[in-house]
Amino acid sequence: MQLGLVGLGKMGFNMRERLRRAGHEVVGFDRNQEVSDAESLADMVGRLAAPRIVWIMVPHGAPTRQTVEELGDLLEPGDIVIEGGNSRWTEDQANAALLAEKGVGYLDCGVSGGVWGLENGYGLMVGGDAELVERAMPVFDALRPEGPRDEGFAHAGEVGAGHFAKMVHNGIEYGLMQAYAEGYELLAAADVVKDVPAVLKAWTRGTVVRSWLLDLLVNALGEDPELTQLRGYVEDSGEGRWTIEAAIAHAVPAPVMSAALFSRFASRQEDSPAMKAVAALRNQFGGHAVHKAGPTSGAGEVK
Amino acid sequence: MQLGLVGLGKMGFNMRERLRRAGHEVVGFDRNQEVSDAESLADMVGRLAAPRIVWIMVPHGAPTRQTVEELGDLLEPGDIVIEGGNSRWTEDQANAALLAEKGVGYLDCGVSGGVWGLENGYGLMVGGDAELVERAMPVFDALRPEGPRDEGFAHAGEVGAGHFAKMVHNGIEYGLMQAYAEGYELLAAADVVKDVPAVLKAWTRGTVVRSWLLDLLVNALGEDPELTQLRGYVEDSGEGRWTIEAAIAHAVPAPVMSAALFSRFASRQEDSPAMKAVAALRNQFGGHAVHKAGPTSGAGEVK
Amino acid sequence: MQLGLVGLGKMGFNMRERLRRAGHEVVGFDRNQEVSDAESLADMVGRLAAPRIVWIMVPHGAPTRQTVEELGDLLEPGDIVIEGGNSRWTEDQANAALLAEKGVGYLDCGVSGGVWGLENGYGLMVGGDAELVERAMPVFDALRPEGPRDEGFAHAGEVGAGHFAKMVHNGIEYGLMQAYAEGYELLAAADVVKDVPAVLKAWTRGTVVRSWLLDLLVNALGEDPELTQLRGYVEDSGEGRWTIEAAIAHAVPAPVMSAALFSRFASRQEDSPAMKAVAALRNQFGGHAVHKAGPTSGAGEVK
Amino acid sequence: MQLGLVGLGKMGFNMRERLRRAGHEVVGFDRNQEVSDAESLADMVGRLAAPRIVWIMVPHGAPTRQTVEELGDLLEPGDIVIEGGNSRWTEDQANAALLAEKGVGYLDCGVSGGVWGLENGYGLMVGGDAELVERAMPVFDALRPEGPRDEGFAHAGEVGAGHFAKMVHNGIEYGLMQAYAEGYELLAAADVVKDVPAVLKAWTRGTVVRSWLLDLLVNALGEDPELTQLRGYVEDSGEGRWTIEAAIAHAVPAPVMSAALFSRFASRQEDSPAMKAVAALRNQFGGHAVHKAGPTSGAGEVK
Repeated sequence: MQLGLVGLGKMGFNMRERLRRAGHEVVGFDRNQEVSDAESLADMVGRLAAPRIVWIMVPHGAPTRQTVEELGDLLEPGDIVIEGGNSRWTEDQANAALLAEKGVGYLDCGVSGGVWGLENGYGLMVGGDAELVERAMPVFDALRPEGPRDEGFAHAGEVGAGHFAKMVHNGIEYGLMQAYAEGYELLAAADVVKDVPAVLKAWTRGTVVRSWLLDLLVNALGEDPELTQLRGYVEDSGEGRWTIEAAIAHAVPAPVMSAALFSRFASRQEDSPAMKAVAALRNQFGGHAVHKAGPTSGAGEVK
Repeated sequence: MQLGLVGLGKMGFNMRERLRRAGHEVVGFDRNQEVSDAESLADMVGRLAAPRIVWIMVPHGAPTRQTVEELGDLLEPGDIVIEGGNSRWTEDQANAALLAEKGVGYLDCGVSGGVWGLENGYGLMVGGDAELVERAMPVFDALRPEGPRDEGFAHAGEVGAGHFAKMVHNGIEYGLMQAYAEGYELLAAADVVKDVPAVLKAWTRGTVVRSWLLDLLVNALGEDPELTQLRGYVEDSGEGRWTIEAAIAHAVPAPVMSAALFSRFASRQEDSPAMKAVAALRNQFGGHAVHKAGPTSGAGEVK
Repeated sequence: MQLGLVGLGKMGFNMRERLRRAGHEVVGFDRNQEVSDAESLADMVGRLAAPRIVWIMVPHGAPTRQTVEELGDLLEPGDIVIEGGNSRWTEDQANAALLAEKGVGYLDCGVSGGVWGLENGYGLMVGGDAELVERAMPVFDALRPEGPRDEGFAHAGEVGAGHFAKMVHNGIEYGLMQAYAEGYELLAAADVVKDVPAVLKAWTRGTVVRSWLLDLLVNALGEDPELTQLRGYVEDSGEGRWTIEAAIAHAVPAPVMSAALFSRFASRQEDSPAMKAVAALRNQFGGHAVHKAGPTSGAGEVK
Repeated sequence: MQLGLVGLGKMGFNMRERLRRAGHEVVGFDRNQEVSDAESLADMVGRLAAPRIVWIMVPHGAPTRQTVEELGDLLEPGDIVIEGGNSRWTEDQANAALLAEKGVGYLDCGVSGGVWGLENGYGLMVGGDAELVERAMPVFDALRPEGPRDEGFAHAGEVGAGHFAKMVHNGIEYGLMQAYAEGYELLAAADVVKDVPAVLKAWTRGTVVRSWLLDLLVNALGEDPELTQLRGYVEDSGEGRWTIEAAIAHAVPAPVMSAALFSRFASRQEDSPAMKAVAALRNQFGGHAVHKAGPTSGAGEVK
């Protein structure tokens, strides 16, 4: 099958490779000409025979929106756009509506698997019309892991359902990572366990907590047993925030997913304004010692 | 190898079977004579040739303590007791000291895997002297999953380290389960995703959140797609509580593991005294409507 | 001073009374003619001499927006609208812009104090131009508590700042209420404290936790010492949700305010889908007993 | 009335003064002879006429226990010891039992109010026999705030009840402080509110969130409007930990009180091992940029 692929970053680059290995003909476009197969979006579209399938894999927000708009001008009725990036699910409706005016179909596809997807395949959650999903199935089949289709692919619902499912996937992911991380810290803090990496490795088969994330943590500890090469500074890429917002919108209690998100926020603060306020209060009522801000943030003396 | 096994409940029964399949000679004892191989603890010990290995698999607390004490009277110097139940790690030192007086060795072994361990093998975390661990290794090798030893077994440290590691394992497990559960609830609450079980099944290969617990959740949804046969009432068996206590003792922040534990507590309350107090406050300052307790707890009318 | 007051519900009714006691001439309008001074919004406006001040005190969202639009048609350049309801702060800009087209000024005012404000006065947080604030100051002075102006009134910033401050106030309020509520539940759960209401009453003077909310909780316990007349079912009115959304937007960790919000969500669930999922998982891996849903939700049997 | 007072630190020193102002004769003892009235504990006891009342106000744990033991040797049947420090309530029973052997009575008294208690009086929660409470009432009346006795004093139950109530008081206090702190941080993070200290000051009268802690936060911001002189580093003194442990023991959900405690733990970490683990995981699956630990902890470069 022939398809266009816009965006050849960490994810898109690997996906092109996996699609080609499966025998598909991929015309990739990226602003970085070193990796791009086409000179421009128009050039890419021009090289595809109608009816076309174009997969978008660029950063969410403005870049994705702009790509959708440009494709709307370039594509023809009967073509399909698949938004495979990390768009907020609420943006899919607008994208679909814009393309529908041109007769172009739209699917949103949440993609999970990270850099390992090239070899393992990607978990896929798709939203949109069943007929379009059917037409694009060879592409999904190439990207998803080997095995039964329904263990790596779901048609989750109408437009937006794919990214909603991916958003929740990421919210869960935050919670899972934080759970392992808290347990790791506790093992490391207590003297009783002498070999923390060995314990985590022993959990990788047979136990209730075995998972792919655990395997990765074991990998990381294999390379750096006390994680001395890293700082405890963690970004978040949006889906975790949207998950909490969706939970609030639906009155769903989300104590674990929100705790994981807030821990990331806190990890990025040089100093916490909230905890300054708590320190100020303790000082006010109890004359408790506070740490004064010193000439450098790390050198406060205890008073 | 020959060994005694005290306690043939859900876990012990399966472990005896797995050990026998591996060619070990197991003399099991249980108060339930229908499953027991021996008439009494003394009978069991009598059937084993010294130096003996006896594995304890009875409920933690008093039953385990009593079994240790009785074995202390029955065993001989050079024998080994392996406490494989869910003892609190702080109790292992006392057990070991008691048996040391008799010259009997002591290992604590955290065991994970549930009812699936019979087929899959059990993840094992062991505490105690290396020499004793070495002697009991054939038993551990039979119980752990196939594959490299270090992927299903760890010698975590001195006495207590095995149960400490298992305790943290369970604290993590609580967090993992709650993360999936919150995500499941959000998927089910939003209209956009039409087939929630299909989405979770699609996560089982290739995605970042794939895990054995996810596989189990997919199983459960396969049997009962909306979980209508269950109530949201969840027990806890101690390790989650001990994990938070250990986190507090070591000043380790544990927001996710504690949120999971508290969600279980809340799930078991018919009505929440705390939320009554919040309702009372809202009513006091704002004249906000409250739900009055009615003739039955489920039939309060809104005022 | 003369002013119009739209909305004579629990809050507006009392505010009219407090303003009148301070000597202001209030023309109130409410759709409920039994409490209304004017027959219509137009009638109300007609009875006020320009330049007018009109205070809006209707439910947030559509009712407030509609009132702003209607006032835009009725008022004249130089008049001032004060939105004193619980609008989301992001809506104030749109309101202000609409009225600015007509030359009508706009202030947003967060109001705290509940039904007690009639006697105690209301805490006020105002957003908008300083010149407009100055003109409306006699109204604010009448509504705020006696004492220094800056202890019950703040000009917080430009349009939206008043409602933003009120929103955060309510987020804090959720956290404070939940903190007292958890402490109350713990006191009640432990046998050691024999007279819980007496302990809370003893906290009302001298202690670090003394507050108005504590006084109200003591009141409530004075009327119903075990809160047997209430159900632990707590609504939320929006500001708590917006507070968490704002915290997420600014990457501010908000574990306490969010925990309080989620506790309210959970209090309103007959049964928790998330905890069903956790129960299903425990049952899957451990054969743990679950509570089956029975013929009525309250009568599940333990298996 | 005559009484001995052991421990003249920040709290004890002020309490001696408040008792003297009320006309009581206080013989204070402290190892610091500059503030002590007596040369030794024995000297202090010797100066008191039987039946004596001795108030202990030394650090909890070993110092308190040792003082109780020494007083057990010095006092006579009919005397009373009041433990007014921050003992864990579970220690009171042992203290009481030890003194009971000597015929000496024991009361535990939780004291709240901090350095402001000298002027405002202290909130008091007492555990022990009613007859002993009655005998010591003049002391309690002098220490508690003016006003009705039951608004600053409670006889909470038998031995231990006073410290249990104080422990919960402190758990609540943690939650209250954190709620204000989170709100403060959010106000400060958003641009819309121009004068954060003014907003908090405006909350001190009339609002739902008014409290003594809020007054103190306003004080602190009056001295340092952006809290630039402080670091967000907050100690905890034990009661918060015990509160969570008690909540766990009674299966009481405590999401807010625990979140406040964990925020303190996190505030004291130079770097978070848990967040290192999360960073390691993101790096493993997504090739996400991590912050490498650099030559100094504050100077990691982004890769």
